[in-house]
Amino acid sequence: MAKQLSGAGLRGQVAGKTALSTVGKSGSGLTYRGYDVKDLAQNCQFEEVAYLILKGKLPNQSELDAYKTKLRGMRGLPTALKEVLERIPKNAHPMDVLRTGCSMLGNLEMETSFDQQQDVTDRMLACFPSIICYWYRFSHDGVRVDVETDDDSIGGHFLHMLHGEKPRELHEQVMHVSLILYAEHEFNASTFTARVCASTLSDMHSCVTGAIGSLRGPLHGGANEAAMEMIEGFTSADDAEEKMMGMLERKEKIMGFGHAIYSESDPRNEIIKQWSEKLAADVGDDVLYPVSVRCEEVMWREKKLFCNADFFHASAYNFMGIPTPLFTPIFVMSRLTGWAAHVMEQRADNRIIRPSAEYTGEELRPVPPISERA
Amino acid sequence: MAKQLSGAGLRGQVAGKTALSTVGKSGSGLTYRGYDVKDLAQNCQFEEVAYLILKGKLPNQSELDAYKTKLRGMRGLPTALKEVLERIPKNAHPMDVLRTGCSMLGNLEMETSFDQQQDVTDRMLACFPSIICYWYRFSHDGVRVDVETDDDSIGGHFLHMLHGEKPRELHEQVMHVSLILYAEHEFNASTFTARVCASTLSDMHSCVTGAIGSLRGPLHGGANEAAMEMIEGFTSADDAEEKMMGMLERKEKIMGFGHAIYSESDPRNEIIKQWSEKLAADVGDDVLYPVSVRCEEVMWREKKLFCNADFFHASAYNFMGIPTPLFTPIFVMSRLTGWAAHVMEQRADNRIIRPSAEYTGEELRPVPPISERA
Repeated sequence: MAKQLSGAGLRGQVAGKTALSTVGKSGSGLTYRGYDVKDLAQNCQFEEVAYLILKGKLPNQSELDAYKTKLRGMRGLPTALKEVLERIPKNAHPMDVLRTGCSMLGNLEMETSFDQQQDVTDRMLACFPSIICYWYRFSHDGVRVDVETDDDSIGGHFLHMLHGEKPRELHEQVMHVSLILYAEHEFNASTFTARVCASTLSDMHSCVTGAIGSLRGPLHGGANEAAMEMIEGFTSADDAEEKMMGMLERKEKIMGFGHAIYSESDPRNEIIKQWSEKLAADVGDDVLYPVSVRCEEVMWREKKLFCNADFFHASAYNFMGIPTPLFTPIFVMSRLTGWAAHVMEQRADNRIIRPSAEYTGEELRPVPPISERA
Repeated sequence: MAKQLSGAGLRGQVAGKTALSTVGKSGSGLTYRGYDVKDLAQNCQFEEVAYLILKGKLPNQSELDAYKTKLRGMRGLPTALKEVLERIPKNAHPMDVLRTGCSMLGNLEMETSFDQQQDVTDRMLACFPSIICYWYRFSHDGVRVDVETDDDSIGGHFLHMLHGEKPRELHEQVMHVSLILYAEHEFNASTFTARVCASTLSDMHSCVTGAIGSLRGPLHGGANEAAMEMIEGFTSADDAEEKMMGMLERKEKIMGFGHAIYSESDPRNEIIKQWSEKLAADVGDDVLYPVSVRCEEVMWREKKLFCNADFFHASAYNFMGIPTPLFTPIFVMSRLTGWAAHVMEQRADNRIIRPSAEYTGEELRPVPPISERA
């Protein structure tokens, strides 16, 4: 007999093993391969963390240099992929664009052996920013952007294509931090999607394509976009407080607060909040950052709910001139590292993931002739 | 504390509820909404079973007529989608083509509200054969096939586009049976992928795109293709027996036998086997069918392993002139009904699927300066 699990959605149930991360182990922490995410965000570039997650160790200087050089050389897009992106309309969902771009890439550069899994992943890490910006700039500005820039980092490459000019150092630095914070988060729904797919021994592009589709869901990715839409409707900190109190009274859903796993705080919040403050000072903002801080105070005072990673990401991205619909695609550019590492882990010790269901339907019955059906 | 599950791959663990099907309840049976699959395969067209699975009841004659008329009107492909398919090379994996076609369709005809879930699914049911045949005929024969045929059924539509002529009645009938047999199978890995994706409240195209990626894996779909590759290497029943004995001795993997859930037999085998025999007589075959029967005898005699649904599908499809690489895409054309119905079921009583993991990695450690790393 199949065992009945206690929680819906497999909550609290162990569905496999991982050496990649711990989430909320002491109520608040997040570690990647044993390193605290705060420590990593303070001391590393995103490429170092991607290397750590994918290849199992922090790179030394020559390994990091070689890795960044490798990634820089993989930014170009095949003509057929560009032609596909040019056929996706301006009003498409950017996550659907990335999902399609990743799937198309799988047709053009198929993973034919698991020996290729590291190279195939590095290729995606390098060219996902190209895919999203090529489509965005073509559909919105009519420009065929040059995706083969010489920027030092993945975040810099993204900002350069998006804005058509080399990013400032501060912005490139914030992108490192942001991509590090979103890189890996254990068996969340998109990562679990990738692992279920990997358990059939399917290819890396299928696993990542599936994960993008799951991250697209409003219960998973997209909270930073929802937070942005809310805070840009507030004209001052006082206005924010008044309107939030109304929302709370009407029991409206407020995005960017609380977390399914963390009980005390989201360790990523204090980091991105600091950077949002720096960006606000840099840009001379006196609305969005104070509004965000007031929202945090109100939610804690009224609901004892803390900001999660998404809330101050909204203002931070906005200060860097990133359009709101591209917030979740940035999440993909980062989380791809976690997804791919989980796929590799699943492949290394695999059994197909095939749970059972509790049947709640009709008992056995004969098929009535079509003339006798209601 | 998270509870430790007994089996890897969530085997035997209840991960949710379903009213859609039972698998192996008495060791061998398969029912869709309470109807035995044998009863359905004997008495129904595929469109009736799709209606049953998706809409909850067997249609009466006027409902069935209206449904088939609706599906017939949804076979066309948008120009942008055709242009995408024309850019996918001939040597691509047909499952990657379908995955990309489905994802692209989501850009062009986005599901913007769950109210659209039935229509969006019917659209996919109607146009997946168009997607696969348009690409196949264009890349292999240089022909832009007319996808808007007036064939009565989904299976007929598929065969017509593939061969460029109206299918014979016998072949259309076998397609009904085949599509019925593959339509639904509880929480298999591709369906579970679709449900995990659905649990984030993502759109139908994301869920189906992800499921296609999982079905692509050699541990899931593709067994009928592998069976075909084996049996076409045998020149007679005696040759098959001799070579199989050798394979068994060398402990080589033989596809199309046994099943993760069924313990005594696969109820779908006896049905498709009968139709394979009819097709063999019709085509005057005296090799492939006798070879297949001998394989079945040898596997039962030597290993007590029974044929699963895939084994006699190989010869049946081959007798209808279907190229082997299109076997798994036919599986998609059928299983789409089960996937979509599970997505609808998940949406109706949802909690995000987010299990936990057992951590097996490094303990907390500080990030060393890059100059001090090995």
